[in-house]
Amino acid sequence: MRQDDDVKTADFTDVRATNLAVVLRHLRANGPSSRAAIAASTGLNKATVSSLTSDLIGQRLLRETGLTGNRIGRPATELALDGSAYAAIGLQVAADRLTALAVDFAGEQLLLWHRAVRADRAGTAITALAQRAASRVRQQGRHVLGLTVAVPGLVADGGTVRLSPPLGWADLDLRGLLSGSLRQSGLTVAVANHAVLAAVAEQRHGGHPGGANLTYVTGAAGVEAGLVVDGRPLAGAHGFTGQIGRFTLGPAGAPTLQDLAGVEPLVRRALPDFDPESLGDLSPAVEQVAVQARAGDAATLQALRDTGCHLGQGLALLANLVNPELIVLGDHYAALAEWLIPAAETELARHTLAPEAGGARLIASRLGLHAAALGGAVTHLDRVDTGDLSRLAHA
Amino acid sequence: MRQDDDVKTADFTDVRATNLAVVLRHLRANGPSSRAAIAASTGLNKATVSSLTSDLIGQRLLRETGLTGNRIGRPATELALDGSAYAAIGLQVAADRLTALAVDFAGEQLLLWHRAVRADRAGTAITALAQRAASRVRQQGRHVLGLTVAVPGLVADGGTVRLSPPLGWADLDLRGLLSGSLRQSGLTVAVANHAVLAAVAEQRHGGHPGGANLTYVTGAAGVEAGLVVDGRPLAGAHGFTGQIGRFTLGPAGAPTLQDLAGVEPLVRRALPDFDPESLGDLSPAVEQVAVQARAGDAATLQALRDTGCHLGQGLALLANLVNPELIVLGDHYAALAEWLIPAAETELARHTLAPEAGGARLIASRLGLHAAALGGAVTHLDRVDTGDLSRLAHA
Repeated sequence: MRQDDDVKTADFTDVRATNLAVVLRHLRANGPSSRAAIAASTGLNKATVSSLTSDLIGQRLLRETGLTGNRIGRPATELALDGSAYAAIGLQVAADRLTALAVDFAGEQLLLWHRAVRADRAGTAITALAQRAASRVRQQGRHVLGLTVAVPGLVADGGTVRLSPPLGWADLDLRGLLSGSLRQSGLTVAVANHAVLAAVAEQRHGGHPGGANLTYVTGAAGVEAGLVVDGRPLAGAHGFTGQIGRFTLGPAGAPTLQDLAGVEPLVRRALPDFDPESLGDLSPAVEQVAVQARAGDAATLQALRDTGCHLGQGLALLANLVNPELIVLGDHYAALAEWLIPAAETELARHTLAPEAGGARLIASRLGLHAAALGGAVTHLDRVDTGDLSRLAHA
Repeated sequence: MRQDDDVKTADFTDVRATNLAVVLRHLRANGPSSRAAIAASTGLNKATVSSLTSDLIGQRLLRETGLTGNRIGRPATELALDGSAYAAIGLQVAADRLTALAVDFAGEQLLLWHRAVRADRAGTAITALAQRAASRVRQQGRHVLGLTVAVPGLVADGGTVRLSPPLGWADLDLRGLLSGSLRQSGLTVAVANHAVLAAVAEQRHGGHPGGANLTYVTGAAGVEAGLVVDGRPLAGAHGFTGQIGRFTLGPAGAPTLQDLAGVEPLVRRALPDFDPESLGDLSPAVEQVAVQARAGDAATLQALRDTGCHLGQGLALLANLVNPELIVLGDHYAALAEWLIPAAETELARHTLAPEAGGARLIASRLGLHAAALGGAVTHLDRVDTGDLSRLAHA
């Protein structure tokens, strides 16, 4: 197996795919450039660049943007990423609602929808929402490259939800299910863990340097981490990674990190008379906690400090094991970051063997509550950035 | 940077290197084969295989082993890995002693030496031992491809020991130091964490399937883990990974995994009247603990059960985060594995969210106390297996 793969990575289609990727990444990183500038900074010769760019223009991934101005010699035509022809959809599943998001290859958000739903009805609701989103995007004249569904818990590589306590799912072949019900609409379907997808979104749209070793921590449905390592999501043997909430040490029945640093325990402590029934969507409760914190409520501030301390211990564990460059506090944690981060940073540094927490910076996400949906869409668009244009032909 | 790399990985030298690697791996995996058999099972055409194999024979990495027997048509010459011309050296540093090991490309161990040493004298002792080992190997008519020094603690990518509590080292540019003192002997020097190198050795010489996601746990000098992920050692942002011993949760001063599951605390508990002074080398004490366990001493067996339980909690944490296929208990843990594993397996399964510990198998290393030295040598030989023959020219 291994050997055949190696042979493939060396054949000539891949040389071209690699070079297509080089051109696309150059333009994504540096903005509009002339063919000559692309050749100069990628090390590819001009004839190759001309052939690659005409391919990409033909595929509507690039467009010519007129002439360059201030330069010596005759002006050259500049090329820019287009990608308005291609889009992808991410669909994020929570215990009480679905979020659908579509983005095009150039990074423009095309739609963001929320739907209330019960987990036991999620299957049909996902299908319906995916179909509506796909036809809306197609009405806008875009090809849909694929759909990725983001769920909390353990998702096996094949797209089976092995175990999702927040959704009450076990051994559910969600990918198979949706591929069947969406066959008519011709959508390519993938399923992945929401924290992993959120980490991918932070890497591409979070606007932080140092994304090659990035960890995203979600508190939306239990505490989970999405690990990007050497630039790629960490899958492990079967895709069951990032379950930091289970972290415990000591006698049987000792509390887990989730018990000590979870968002729901924090809410219950800061809002004693909060209605447990309404804990499906934590957002209003989290906003109320923030309001009390801003008002200087002592009990709320203490609860936030304690949560931050324990979260910091969990992050130290992560930093000691995988040495991330960047730890991004996501969703509800981001909304409370100004109170959580000071305590968390102290514990992170105290419990990490490497000085300055091994160089890990702790920051709040700016991508809001639907980072996983964005990441789900991005995974399909990233395939194009690697020079894999095979899907475009079918699109 | 990224882009230039991609261009490189696609150029033609790399196509050839990749194909050289394919041939070498085929022979390592399948043993002696004819050129036709290599072509058939690698997908390379016969002309390419002939040209690649004559290169490799010229480099003394392959040799012809006479004719194949029972097959239709005229008999063909078989080729086998040779590699007796090339060797590499691993040097393992502990608080009280050095271990030097040399192995050739075909996997034969050429020497295994131990020297007593004090950490404050380690620098000169390492240089002297490396020089003696290199000249011994050269006397045997081998080229030495390189030397890797294995140390406990944090080693930065450049080979600087950032922090090694067991050795009492901080910010020591060990690689620079040794490169200077070994310049005459023309040795290429690398420095890496001992658990990471032991994991590499397990991957290549441990004889387990499923080495692509493997974790090696050492108890030789504190509790550290060497993580191999998707077939490669996990470096993280700066190389500071696998520090599982720091793992703690709860109020300030709560015990760490190292306090609860370390080998030294176990020894102190099982052998109350053991001389703490002699704790530099734990081997005799560990052997005494094993003797008492075999004799059925209740206190010793209880101490082993407790250590196993806490170790299992630490491994569950690892399994929840990086989902290894294989967890290898190394060095002193391996010597006590028959008593540690039952309790550790129970806790590992109990605290891992994924069923059956996410598929992680817990086993004892068969590579003994010098796995890290072996791994140090292997890292240099692995570069040849990837088709990188550049060093051979200089060798």
